[in-house]
Amino acid sequence: MTEPYTLILLRHGNSDWNQKNLFTGWVDVGLSEQGVGEAKRAGELLAESGLAPDVLYTSRLVRAIETANYALTVADRLWIDVKRSWRLNERHYGALQGKDKAQTLAEYGPEQFQTWRRSYDVPPPPIADDDQYSQLGDPRYADLGDAVPRTECLKDVVDRMLPYWFSDITVDLAAGKTVLVTAHGNSLRALVKHLDGISDDDIAELNIPTGIPLVYTLDENFVPTKPAAYLDPEAAAAGAAAVAAQGKK
Amino acid sequence: MTEPYTLILLRHGNSDWNQKNLFTGWVDVGLSEQGVGEAKRAGELLAESGLAPDVLYTSRLVRAIETANYALTVADRLWIDVKRSWRLNERHYGALQGKDKAQTLAEYGPEQFQTWRRSYDVPPPPIADDDQYSQLGDPRYADLGDAVPRTECLKDVVDRMLPYWFSDITVDLAAGKTVLVTAHGNSLRALVKHLDGISDDDIAELNIPTGIPLVYTLDENFVPTKPAAYLDPEAAAAGAAAVAAQGKK
Repeated sequence: MTEPYTLILLRHGNSDWNQKNLFTGWVDVGLSEQGVGEAKRAGELLAESGLAPDVLYTSRLVRAIETANYALTVADRLWIDVKRSWRLNERHYGALQGKDKAQTLAEYGPEQFQTWRRSYDVPPPPIADDDQYSQLGDPRYADLGDAVPRTECLKDVVDRMLPYWFSDITVDLAAGKTVLVTAHGNSLRALVKHLDGISDDDIAELNIPTGIPLVYTLDENFVPTKPAAYLDPEAAAAGAAAVAAQGKK
Repeated sequence: MTEPYTLILLRHGNSDWNQKNLFTGWVDVGLSEQGVGEAKRAGELLAESGLAPDVLYTSRLVRAIETANYALTVADRLWIDVKRSWRLNERHYGALQGKDKAQTLAEYGPEQFQTWRRSYDVPPPPIADDDQYSQLGDPRYADLGDAVPRTECLKDVVDRMLPYWFSDITVDLAAGKTVLVTAHGNSLRALVKHLDGISDDDIAELNIPTGIPLVYTLDENFVPTKPAAYLDPEAAAAGAAAVAAQGKK
């Protein structure tokens, strides 16, 4: 019998810009007090589950890093190995980064707004290189140089995230390590799309709630052996509904 | 002209057990409120200095990890790469782990006490495997198995730390990265002994203050090109004197 692999996905909690209702993307905004509470709750869920991550993967964005640090502190696993990559970053929101969501909705109308939020392959307009919310020249992405994204659709996120899944994350899984990936709504949707074989159309309907660990059991080909499960299913259902409702305000 | 390398050493701040005056060693105790303040101050000093760490090395002990996280948050560098190793851990204090320092001094007398604290090659008695403060079976050291230390003198720390210096830390330095090592009084004394060529006898007199970054500039052979400098020399002198005085109480 093959020993199955365990993968835990965790979406960061509420950030300062979630509270201000601004598009965030690659802008590096810290957690709000609410987000800190969500992260600690995720740590309690991990501890109660008996799942013990051996290695942590995060994006380069502090809201994901802080979420992992708070959760792992509560779960008494802050000492595990850590790997970070821009490939796990949130989707780059292009020229919308730093813009008010309600104002954008009013300005462009609900159809355009929903296209930018949820279409698989239509990115928002690119951000200007001299925009204050551009990541060109950001030391976090010094290794990318001029290749730093100016905007991304979900397809772009899949295309830059999957190589890292295969090159790094699956290697740790194959070594028998329990892997925790703490990241963002869209980088996690990209990974779930791959793992669950969700179509380009259907992925629009998938919402991942914040702060609730989602546990996958994978076989030796990294295929789920059963449906992934949230550690707090009731809270996850309520959270996913809340995310879905954001687009309908 | 060869570009010199930059190495920053940072000793963690006050922990809960420092405040209780207990020998800590490999027991994984968190920072006290005072220690959190020291860590944030270290972050301010880093930010003011203009030094920007590209990669963080820590021990597996949360007081070092938390110190780094607080400091890097203040310095806006929480997103850098992280590597952890037990080879950067504090000296294992053997059977003294968890013991009250004043009580140990009263029980064994000042000469034995000072030998255990500062001799180069005399370790304290080994800790029993069934002691509550033994690390045998601790998941942090699963890869060590039965080879987990039962006690260490400073010479033992040098012997297990230096291989990691050569295998990992110098590789990042050689790649031109500014390296931050956040660790402990004795693992940092071991590294400073090597870097500054301090004799087995003279290292007893060297005290590293907590929470003040110590900056080395190294040539291509990882030899200091000038004396290392604390980012806050006055506070460092006062801090080193305070550490020295601990043994004389």
